[in-house]
Amino acid sequence: MEKTVVVGGGLVGALQSIYLAKRGYQVDVYERRSDLRTAKLIAGKSINLALSDRGWKALERAGISDDIKEISIPMHGRMMHSISGELTYQPYGKDGQAIYSVSRGELNRKLLQCAGKYENVSLYFDKKCLELDLNENELEFENLRTGEIKHVKADRIYGTDGAFSSVRMRMMKTDRFDYSQTYLKEGYKELSIPANADGTHKLDKNCLHIWPRGAFMLIALANLDGSFTCTLFFPFEGEQSFATINTEEKALQFFKEVFPDTLDLIPDLPQQYMRNPNASLVLVRCNPWHVTDRVVLMGDASHAIVPFYGQGMNCGFEDCRVLDELIDELNGDYKAIFEEYTRLRQPDGNAIADLALQNFIEMRDLVGDESFLLRKKIEKKIHEKHPDKWIPLYSQVTFSPNIRYSEAIANGKRQEKIMDEIMAIDGITEKWDSDEIENMILSKV
Amino acid sequence: MEKTVVVGGGLVGALQSIYLAKRGYQVDVYERRSDLRTAKLIAGKSINLALSDRGWKALERAGISDDIKEISIPMHGRMMHSISGELTYQPYGKDGQAIYSVSRGELNRKLLQCAGKYENVSLYFDKKCLELDLNENELEFENLRTGEIKHVKADRIYGTDGAFSSVRMRMMKTDRFDYSQTYLKEGYKELSIPANADGTHKLDKNCLHIWPRGAFMLIALANLDGSFTCTLFFPFEGEQSFATINTEEKALQFFKEVFPDTLDLIPDLPQQYMRNPNASLVLVRCNPWHVTDRVVLMGDASHAIVPFYGQGMNCGFEDCRVLDELIDELNGDYKAIFEEYTRLRQPDGNAIADLALQNFIEMRDLVGDESFLLRKKIEKKIHEKHPDKWIPLYSQVTFSPNIRYSEAIANGKRQEKIMDEIMAIDGITEKWDSDEIENMILSKV
Repeated sequence: MEKTVVVGGGLVGALQSIYLAKRGYQVDVYERRSDLRTAKLIAGKSINLALSDRGWKALERAGISDDIKEISIPMHGRMMHSISGELTYQPYGKDGQAIYSVSRGELNRKLLQCAGKYENVSLYFDKKCLELDLNENELEFENLRTGEIKHVKADRIYGTDGAFSSVRMRMMKTDRFDYSQTYLKEGYKELSIPANADGTHKLDKNCLHIWPRGAFMLIALANLDGSFTCTLFFPFEGEQSFATINTEEKALQFFKEVFPDTLDLIPDLPQQYMRNPNASLVLVRCNPWHVTDRVVLMGDASHAIVPFYGQGMNCGFEDCRVLDELIDELNGDYKAIFEEYTRLRQPDGNAIADLALQNFIEMRDLVGDESFLLRKKIEKKIHEKHPDKWIPLYSQVTFSPNIRYSEAIANGKRQEKIMDEIMAIDGITEKWDSDEIENMILSKV
Repeated sequence: MEKTVVVGGGLVGALQSIYLAKRGYQVDVYERRSDLRTAKLIAGKSINLALSDRGWKALERAGISDDIKEISIPMHGRMMHSISGELTYQPYGKDGQAIYSVSRGELNRKLLQCAGKYENVSLYFDKKCLELDLNENELEFENLRTGEIKHVKADRIYGTDGAFSSVRMRMMKTDRFDYSQTYLKEGYKELSIPANADGTHKLDKNCLHIWPRGAFMLIALANLDGSFTCTLFFPFEGEQSFATINTEEKALQFFKEVFPDTLDLIPDLPQQYMRNPNASLVLVRCNPWHVTDRVVLMGDASHAIVPFYGQGMNCGFEDCRVLDELIDELNGDYKAIFEEYTRLRQPDGNAIADLALQNFIEMRDLVGDESFLLRKKIEKKIHEKHPDKWIPLYSQVTFSPNIRYSEAIANGKRQEKIMDEIMAIDGITEKWDSDEIENMILSKV
């Protein structure tokens, strides 16, 4: 029986374990943290996740999408909050299309529970990966409770140990391995909107709430218990930044000025602001994603991206789905499977990394812009009337799991050029809904 | 007395030790290799170095330039070898200006000898750096002969441990540390032209010899013993590459076709080709280059660049010179010194990294091009008549140590634009030497 080791029992590691278990392999999962199935979930430094079609497709193939549906809340559009408290709604896609808010901790717990049901899956917690011997395909783990050292050999090693992957760190020392880690000038801080006394949500739970403010922004995603997890994306340095807004008084004053409608929603805002840490945002790229037929990287270990397209986890789940399909297609020839996996997924990882960076600008800035909203409205109309001819970039990424990220970014560029021309037309604000404009767009496709 | 540890006794580590020794600090140098002062120099995987004015300026400040002059050979220009055996000479700068060929092994030995003369310098060899504790500023070294582990604390740590720096590896794990390593699709292989029986050189020793061939090239730099160290820069994959030219027969056939005049120069060419390893070319960038007032990166540890501008070592030596000047200017306030060092040097490291990449194209391709050589001739003339108004980019980088790399790259771009316009003039081949062209250039400066 093929012996596999999955390093990291986070979201991608847990899902990958299920895929491997279904093939009848022996699956040993080593996770540095304590058992998330029983540990109390600790808040303070997480960003709520948005599951979208790529993620669902991967969960469905693993046969666990129903389990996850139970803990997720559909969001059909963005709700923008202006400084004056005005609300603007923008649907994400067509009627019925949605992305799904889910808490990272809840989701990870559920995935591990699903994995743990397989007899051929063993979950080991509090195990830190210290070394990887690429010649012997042997891992060294430290038991963080006892200090004990354990060596584990495997036929195949799946590195799903996140943005700061130990597996990748070892691969980095092999010849001709390209690698980069780049930090954004902005960081983030978690804040929380509590539920009403009766357990209901204080805002519409079926929207992703955004307070776009140019150089920074606040977002809020609903939780099952009536609360919202908010994230403030904010520069580390500069006039308005974590460096300058650094006392309860300054935080209160700052929120009063720029996010006035949040003060009622978060009664202990200044305390939360000072208590919760400032976290950084890193972008990781590397190439290749595998070593011979032995070791492969998946999820953030191979492509940590910024969270602004809500695709980090979805891309990681898609890694699992694509790899699983390749195992079928290439009849278990792992040398060919891992090579093809790198060849297909590495450019897709790069594409979604680029898109996520671009979307930061869209979210914090453009969503408050009239002309941007009109552009979206025109695209939506063309898409609804001619779904075979035009899919907005956002929908390609979010609702079209059969379009590769690298195709989406290329299609998006072509469409952007067309829309630039359309938006430059005199009187577009008045005649955007006319047959003339519609035909003009169709002629350019 | 300030206790400093220099991690790595390569070229930059040895020079930095001398600078620190002159300040009266205690300097402990830990080097992974055996004592280069007594070990036999092993050939096979090195590229000869070209010392230029930035390097000399740093050596002069350390008071050791005369020691180094003894082991270096001036090269006043490039000698291009065409396939048909035709030679074309192109001077590097003005009369008297030169870059200096020096063997890496010889130079390292000499620098360590100079460092070893200071009573306050201790050199430890066969010591591999395993860990760096940034809280305690404590290093862990393994004695590679005995396996013994030693812990060393220091007031300040100088990371001069090269492109695969252990010190930087630890810094990489700190928050908001940007890092990238990128490999070229081309690698290199060392070859050697032996001396004549009477100890003389088989080619003009006062030139850098180049066989430019578009996608690849061969270069040769003279050694003191009458030999030349050659380097073949060659793609790893592709029709003509290390992957395809992989037997003695194929190597001989290939050299016959593309470097026919080398067959007489290297009698055992096929054997050398098969015996010597293929080495890769890596580009490393990172930011910042320091941790508080405790740790600082210098040389390849902070900016490994490709060898095509002959500036890797020169830039590393300049790091030492600039840091030493900052220690004076900022009166030993190391927090300010290291911050200013990163602020000044990081963009300069990036600039020379970019320039070196560009120069690969120039060396392997353009130097065989008529129009390129004319452009150089025009620039040379203007420079000689108006040295205050025009310094060719190559001379700024190579012969003008008071111009920062980042200034040179900016000046170079401005000048390139002017020269593009000049080269586009009808009949420039005939009238390049005219007053008209000269005045035109001067009017654009």
